[in-house]
Amino acid sequence: MTRPLAVVLASGGLDSCVCVADTARDHDLALLHVNYGQRTQARELRAFTDIADHYRVPAARRLVTDLAHLAAIGGSSLLDPEAPVEQGLPAGGDGIPSTYVPFRNAHLLCIAVSWAEVIGAGVVVLGAVQEDSSGYPDCREVFVRAFQAAVDAGTRPQTRIELRTPLIHLDKAAIARRGIELEAPLHLTWSCYVAADVACGRCESCRLRRRGFERAGAVDPLAYAI
Amino acid sequence: MTRPLAVVLASGGLDSCVCVADTARDHDLALLHVNYGQRTQARELRAFTDIADHYRVPAARRLVTDLAHLAAIGGSSLLDPEAPVEQGLPAGGDGIPSTYVPFRNAHLLCIAVSWAEVIGAGVVVLGAVQEDSSGYPDCREVFVRAFQAAVDAGTRPQTRIELRTPLIHLDKAAIARRGIELEAPLHLTWSCYVAADVACGRCESCRLRRRGFERAGAVDPLAYAI
Repeated sequence: MTRPLAVVLASGGLDSCVCVADTARDHDLALLHVNYGQRTQARELRAFTDIADHYRVPAARRLVTDLAHLAAIGGSSLLDPEAPVEQGLPAGGDGIPSTYVPFRNAHLLCIAVSWAEVIGAGVVVLGAVQEDSSGYPDCREVFVRAFQAAVDAGTRPQTRIELRTPLIHLDKAAIARRGIELEAPLHLTWSCYVAADVACGRCESCRLRRRGFERAGAVDPLAYAI
Repeated sequence: MTRPLAVVLASGGLDSCVCVADTARDHDLALLHVNYGQRTQARELRAFTDIADHYRVPAARRLVTDLAHLAAIGGSSLLDPEAPVEQGLPAGGDGIPSTYVPFRNAHLLCIAVSWAEVIGAGVVVLGAVQEDSSGYPDCREVFVRAFQAAVDAGTRPQTRIELRTPLIHLDKAAIARRGIELEAPLHLTWSCYVAADVACGRCESCRLRRRGFERAGAVDPLAYAI
């Protein structure tokens, strides 16, 4: 029997891997990966491919695209090879870290929605996390709800695409627990913002992830440099 | 005296040229052009450059980007070199023409908003036209309003970016009249979906444009093949 089709935004990181595992329970998967000129782009793409292989997603249901213009626009230390990536938790006047890419999730959702409309998927899944996301404005539920209204207004009348953010109110410990419970292939994921061989253990993303596994009382299957 | 900065989405066509002229009255211009794999991409880029030169927009305030993934996604005859572009006005079961690119204006607005946030522009101008736009869902005011809410929710708290669509309730005749009144360089624009040397005169876009000038009682400065 055919199951409904869902587009999942899959960066190759922990959060999106748990989204893939969650969605795979009751949907056929279409996995979307977006390069946007970030430092660890090649390593994240490998993680994406490994996760897609794990779930036996056919080639026609994988889309790897590029948002190279985000690098041309700049404005984030994740995209600028000269800028230092912040160590540890975010600081700064407005509480928004330098790794913030302006309006990034809107770009990702646009691609996912266009693809979903073309392939007939009724669900788009984004692994945004509100409380644990260091204050990126486009990771909050209020943004996702507003974007849903824009999707409803901006697509064909017969199109119904529901945006789902199954992790939005979880913290990293709950996400790690959920991934283990769903038997998600967490050993295939990549989260480090800095290194592509052994995770640095010190960047904002590594720290959040490690602390999440610790608080979950679980073992992170990744090795860390420190 | 410094004037406020506005990002204008400038395709090189009639509508966006009138938006540029309208915005230039009281803003400094930042012009954004997006290639998305459409057939007449090179000709439209030339029109963009000619218009930017006309308004003496400095190089740092011009951004030309690429949405090549829209071509990978497909779903529109504008992007598919094998598909015939409809002649004349739209038909089809849902009244939406085959030249519809799913959710295209959302992609364009995302890029404009990210750039505006980085360069500190408080206004983004889009030449969407509701009544004359052949029923593209993302050309309607209800979509732009919904997207405005997503921008408000998804950008930094101190960021205020106002989306403006000065043509949204005009028809092509009113747009042509407005362009002439503003002394917009309409002879530099390009509207044809099909040809890049002499406008075909038969595609949906040519027909709308010619009829607009006719109804305005004005002379279209472009030559047509038929």
